[in-house]
Amino acid sequence: MQARRGIRLVVAYDGTRYCGWQMQQPGTPTIQGALMRAVERIQGLPAHVYGASRTDAGVHALGQVAAFDTHKELPAYRWIPALNHFLPDDIAVQRAEACAAGTNPRFEATEKLYRYIFHVGPTPDPLMRDQAWHLGKLVPRRRGGLDAEAMHAAACILEGEHDFQAFRSADDPREDTVRTMTTVSIQQGFYDREDLWALHVRGTAFLKHMVRIVAGTLLDVGRGTLKPADVAALLNPGSNRQKAGMTAPAHGLTLVSIALARRS
Amino acid sequence: MQARRGIRLVVAYDGTRYCGWQMQQPGTPTIQGALMRAVERIQGLPAHVYGASRTDAGVHALGQVAAFDTHKELPAYRWIPALNHFLPDDIAVQRAEACAAGTNPRFEATEKLYRYIFHVGPTPDPLMRDQAWHLGKLVPRRRGGLDAEAMHAAACILEGEHDFQAFRSADDPREDTVRTMTTVSIQQGFYDREDLWALHVRGTAFLKHMVRIVAGTLLDVGRGTLKPADVAALLNPGSNRQKAGMTAPAHGLTLVSIALARRS
Repeated sequence: MQARRGIRLVVAYDGTRYCGWQMQQPGTPTIQGALMRAVERIQGLPAHVYGASRTDAGVHALGQVAAFDTHKELPAYRWIPALNHFLPDDIAVQRAEACAAGTNPRFEATEKLYRYIFHVGPTPDPLMRDQAWHLGKLVPRRRGGLDAEAMHAAACILEGEHDFQAFRSADDPREDTVRTMTTVSIQQGFYDREDLWALHVRGTAFLKHMVRIVAGTLLDVGRGTLKPADVAALLNPGSNRQKAGMTAPAHGLTLVSIALARRS
Repeated sequence: MQARRGIRLVVAYDGTRYCGWQMQQPGTPTIQGALMRAVERIQGLPAHVYGASRTDAGVHALGQVAAFDTHKELPAYRWIPALNHFLPDDIAVQRAEACAAGTNPRFEATEKLYRYIFHVGPTPDPLMRDQAWHLGKLVPRRRGGLDAEAMHAAACILEGEHDFQAFRSADDPREDTVRTMTTVSIQQGFYDREDLWALHVRGTAFLKHMVRIVAGTLLDVGRGTLKPADVAALLNPGSNRQKAGMTAPAHGLTLVSIALARRS
């Protein structure tokens, strides 16, 4: 038997039919559970797969990072087709490389890039229904759609280091709510389609539901129910969750990529 | 009861779980069947819904055109939310307008625009798995991907009026195989992604599987197993299906839009 070593993966998935990344009770479909079963099928022994980010139920990924230890004598790149053979077709390993045994990518991640897609239009688009939030009547046509300028202004206000206490789920227990978002940008014409808007958010770490609350808040700015100045006020001490926008639904969110501190 | 009149619809759908547009035996899911049930739920009486194009199983649409007759006193635009309320979420009416009773959009269609999406890359993309043909090993990385120049040349050869006898399913019974494609174009960087290629084909009418065989043939040109000159030869009298490329899988194909002869 070979010495134990680590394999680090980049994984993409359609999160639609999963209860999120993190393993739960048996019978509940999770991304982590599916990966662990695939590794076990290949090496014949149970394995624990660690992930860099615990994506919520329904959230997608293009670049989740995961790692596990193995004794199996198999070059890292050979794990890609092997795992994809056993994985369901809504999860696919994109890259694999050797790393130190015991690697937990959660502690390697220095920056994460998320995108949120809004679909502005009166009728739903069946081909985008699992990947974009269809705004429908949330954006009345008579008001001329979303106010891109106000959304840009609010996005700029959110960039940088702030206390994001108003931008987290009520059940997030963390005491330190200061986080840094290095990029918050709004793009109309995503996928070359005028009716799709993308929010890109890059940061070191996020509070629970933070990106989805940022999405809901910027939407409110776009449709005029909040002003950019209201968003600035949300960053003040003593501000609270009730004054921010709603938590945008999970299916519009995709974890695009994760930067790691070092490659071992 | 109101006089009978027609309602013409533009319909989008994710064709993944349907056996195509056309109604078949009971229990077989079809787009036409789903629309007919939704109309019946609204007006309380059975209706026949005619479509402009009989899309194959697994083929998607952004702009299928359909029409039905009704006695119901309901303004045309009100049919949109009413139908979408009863339709499953992989089918959505985009527009509705009044038209003459007895309208069959099949005889109104003057031009159809289809797109076919190829995904070039070693690993599958779970978020595009139902909408793009993942080429995987069909395009070996060592050869540097698809030859865009050769594909453009072959696409130009296919444009115009030709005998497309080599570009149809073996079971297509039609005797006249001359068709006109006014546009055949290849675009790398679809959706702003370097790994997605789109083929757009516009024409008056198509033979069975014609667009998918054009897609398979242009792929062979892109990966070097056919030359543009071979594609020119396929248009000569006496050429046959075996010399063209494979029939590309249905899930990469989308009916984008249909131009109509007149609006009544």
